[in-house]
Amino acid sequence: MDGMLRESGGGWRARLAVWVDSPPVQRLVIALIVLNAITLGLETSPAVVAVAGGWLHAFDRLALSVFVVELGLKLVARGGAFFRNPWNVFDLVVVGIALVPSAGPFAVLRALRVLRVLRLASMMPQLRFVVEALLHAIPGIAAIAGLLGLLYYVFGVIATSLFGGSFPDWFGSLGASLYTLFQVMTLESWSMGIARPVMEAYPWAWLFFVPFILVATFTMLNLFIAVIVNTMQTLQESQQVRTVEAVRTVTQEEAAALEDEIRALRREVSELREWLRRGD
Amino acid sequence: MDGMLRESGGGWRARLAVWVDSPPVQRLVIALIVLNAITLGLETSPAVVAVAGGWLHAFDRLALSVFVVELGLKLVARGGAFFRNPWNVFDLVVVGIALVPSAGPFAVLRALRVLRVLRLASMMPQLRFVVEALLHAIPGIAAIAGLLGLLYYVFGVIATSLFGGSFPDWFGSLGASLYTLFQVMTLESWSMGIARPVMEAYPWAWLFFVPFILVATFTMLNLFIAVIVNTMQTLQESQQVRTVEAVRTVTQEEAAALEDEIRALRREVSELREWLRRGD
Amino acid sequence: MDGMLRESGGGWRARLAVWVDSPPVQRLVIALIVLNAITLGLETSPAVVAVAGGWLHAFDRLALSVFVVELGLKLVARGGAFFRNPWNVFDLVVVGIALVPSAGPFAVLRALRVLRVLRLASMMPQLRFVVEALLHAIPGIAAIAGLLGLLYYVFGVIATSLFGGSFPDWFGSLGASLYTLFQVMTLESWSMGIARPVMEAYPWAWLFFVPFILVATFTMLNLFIAVIVNTMQTLQESQQVRTVEAVRTVTQEEAAALEDEIRALRREVSELREWLRRGD
Amino acid sequence: MDGMLRESGGGWRARLAVWVDSPPVQRLVIALIVLNAITLGLETSPAVVAVAGGWLHAFDRLALSVFVVELGLKLVARGGAFFRNPWNVFDLVVVGIALVPSAGPFAVLRALRVLRVLRLASMMPQLRFVVEALLHAIPGIAAIAGLLGLLYYVFGVIATSLFGGSFPDWFGSLGASLYTLFQVMTLESWSMGIARPVMEAYPWAWLFFVPFILVATFTMLNLFIAVIVNTMQTLQESQQVRTVEAVRTVTQEEAAALEDEIRALRREVSELREWLRRGD
Repeated sequence: MDGMLRESGGGWRARLAVWVDSPPVQRLVIALIVLNAITLGLETSPAVVAVAGGWLHAFDRLALSVFVVELGLKLVARGGAFFRNPWNVFDLVVVGIALVPSAGPFAVLRALRVLRVLRLASMMPQLRFVVEALLHAIPGIAAIAGLLGLLYYVFGVIATSLFGGSFPDWFGSLGASLYTLFQVMTLESWSMGIARPVMEAYPWAWLFFVPFILVATFTMLNLFIAVIVNTMQTLQESQQVRTVEAVRTVTQEEAAALEDEIRALRREVSELREWLRRGD
Repeated sequence: MDGMLRESGGGWRARLAVWVDSPPVQRLVIALIVLNAITLGLETSPAVVAVAGGWLHAFDRLALSVFVVELGLKLVARGGAFFRNPWNVFDLVVVGIALVPSAGPFAVLRALRVLRVLRLASMMPQLRFVVEALLHAIPGIAAIAGLLGLLYYVFGVIATSLFGGSFPDWFGSLGASLYTLFQVMTLESWSMGIARPVMEAYPWAWLFFVPFILVATFTMLNLFIAVIVNTMQTLQESQQVRTVEAVRTVTQEEAAALEDEIRALRREVSELREWLRRGD
Repeated sequence: MDGMLRESGGGWRARLAVWVDSPPVQRLVIALIVLNAITLGLETSPAVVAVAGGWLHAFDRLALSVFVVELGLKLVARGGAFFRNPWNVFDLVVVGIALVPSAGPFAVLRALRVLRVLRLASMMPQLRFVVEALLHAIPGIAAIAGLLGLLYYVFGVIATSLFGGSFPDWFGSLGASLYTLFQVMTLESWSMGIARPVMEAYPWAWLFFVPFILVATFTMLNLFIAVIVNTMQTLQESQQVRTVEAVRTVTQEEAAALEDEIRALRREVSELREWLRRGD
Repeated sequence: MDGMLRESGGGWRARLAVWVDSPPVQRLVIALIVLNAITLGLETSPAVVAVAGGWLHAFDRLALSVFVVELGLKLVARGGAFFRNPWNVFDLVVVGIALVPSAGPFAVLRALRVLRVLRLASMMPQLRFVVEALLHAIPGIAAIAGLLGLLYYVFGVIATSLFGGSFPDWFGSLGASLYTLFQVMTLESWSMGIARPVMEAYPWAWLFFVPFILVATFTMLNLFIAVIVNTMQTLQESQQVRTVEAVRTVTQEEAAALEDEIRALRREVSELREWLRRGD
């Protein structure tokens, strides 16, 4: 906040930034998102639209206007710093989708209006934290995911070369093969649906599918384990630091008590010496 | 127990509470639950009902009566405190189901009579502990489950808008879409059964299903990991406390030994001084 | 071994026990098990049986005779102690299956002859260790498995009552329901194969299947986590003991060094006193 | 590197080894592998081959030539030591596949040309590290995998004996049974596709399939847990060493401070003695 204030040069922009981030405004926006989620859900029902379509549509426009104004105010208040926060960019994209004229080739965008409900994840701190934790796990698994992608591509090219001619629906192009191998990787109908029919044409096809499943699931498994181990590592490191801190405290306390004893002894020896000197 | 006794004001209610919770009564109730479980299982077989239907039904009424009396006594003995224990409320609901007249719109409740067998989980401490541990894991995963629910809702609305017209059985309403997406999330027939037929009408539909599966399974995975990590954290914290305790004991013992040495030395210095003074 | 020797009263039984467990005899038995596994595998091929069926059968009888003699010798050598080792009982059962006349109602036992190959797990220490570790994990998960069994039984009775009339193949009897719910728990064709057809007759059937899947998989998940956490706990406890031991050593060394210093000081004080006394 | 240099006897072979491993050469090879991966992917599209098939083929030959020359230089530079690095053997095999005349019985090898893209895993340190970590996990799970293999073989022989006659497609030979059991282990269509049809002929067949699934998935689960626990163990041991090191440092510092105090005291006592001696 401090950095933001300094950047916007104080004055009305700083006050605007504070106001836009104030709890009442945030609560209003969250409430509008939730209500908008409900109206967008209701709009999928033709019966409801026949009865209250106009009201739903009007509310949708209202909610959209509020979101546009809110993001516009944030943009004005923060200037270039607005774009440095990825959550703001996310908000801009999911709200912006509704502003593209959804006609002709963009008709599908109308269905994506509901993506703006995902703003809930950017507005509620608990969900925001979870999303950030999920994204945080990705760098730790990037190398394994890269290896999985490489294996996937190689198996896809081989499948297209081997089975593409006889099974164009499943392996006719590299794209079709990659989709089919994704299905095989999820183990959905891999044998009864794909491998057994292929094996009727190419009896040795199990030499392709069984190793692919073993390699893909073992790699997926390790991707999974990598996430667990990364999380546990962070946990253990903090525990280790706490253990060492606690032990340090204990050791220092005991050592301090011993030092007091030794100092008292030194004092007594000094007094003895002093006494002897005086006695002399 | 003490709190209960105090609350019921001593006297016959306190003695009743002690009696209802006494091992012999508990064992009788558990035995009745197990026998009732068996008779309710046998009642599903028309052949057995034809032979011994009367006896089974009579036993069922007997068991139900005992349960009603037992819960009634507990309620009398504990008064308002009865409802503060969620297990008692659970017992009341599963036993109460059998008392609703199971005719007309409530005919399905007859099939739910067997739910009272779940009282075993409230009566046996081992099962009770496991259920409480399972419920204990839920707050730690609430935020991830909330995010999953949000994603699920958004994908459900999109699927209804995009595919509802062409595939009314699967995506005709928001409810149908949510059910189908639950099926897709369990990976059951997601490709051969759902996505491939949809892709024949909308060739780009894999852009919906593949990201949904990736996002949903990755989030589920993290929900799973959150449970593991929460459990491990509790475990590690107790280990850490024990390590620090053990180290504290070791350090204190060694420090005490050193202190003894230093004190002995101080005594010797004192004696020396005393001896010198006397010598003077 | 010592206990065994003492029990068998020394003499020839003790020497026999030593000989039967000696590495050469063990290696011979393991080699025979492996060869027998191969011949039993070859016997499944009609082509191989047509060519060398006699030889395979003869070898099978030979191997079986050796196993019977080996187990007989162990039994003689160890007496009653033989039955106290569960691995011996296991060996006796899997070898004994081949001795039951496999005719009439026991024809299926012929197919179970191959179970004797599992003796490999009782003969090879590595496999034996793994099996014992797997069995060791069971007590830790018994309560969760019990809860799962209870839920499973309750859902089975409900499914039989509700859907048994309309879907006799899947839910016609309690046994059929339990099998179908096991299939649903493995998520195999649960929706396209079972739940969707049932929902055509009972539209609210998803209220049965979806909660069952959520409860069953969440409980399974926790069963899984219990195994991980139990294993990790054992691991961490040994680590904790080692940490404390290492810290104890460090602390004791340092304390010993300090004690040496203090003792040297006490010696000096004593010498000073001695010197003063002599000086007097 | 040092060992390599010494072995190649210095001179031009040592300089060659250094040059072949130099970053610019490595980068060139990696770039060629990536480009080759793209061209091999494009070659699966008949449309692209119709337009630019000649260019793609020419580039493929060029890339192959560079790989052959690179591996040849490495072989010359390192001599026998070349084969001691398994990654080199891997490179040799995946590049060598393209040199086998892919005609007649070896036509399938043409499709395996793309395997050379896997060289990316041997050239990029991050991927190399991941592959080595994955292979590193295998010894820790060898015993469980061995047990799983044993169970799998035994169930395969039993299935062939029991169901081979009635279901030749699924259980006709030991190979067919092993493939079908692999499918069952992945839970793909195990019930609706395999077990239910088999149960129509043999009603007790669930006594084969359900235990197989329980045993196989429980063993797989433990295989999975073994990988997690092995990884965590390594992690915890390094943490434990660090904890002990940190505690050692703390203890030594405190002990050193105490020793300073005691030494100061000894000096004072010495001075006192000296002073008394002089005073005498």
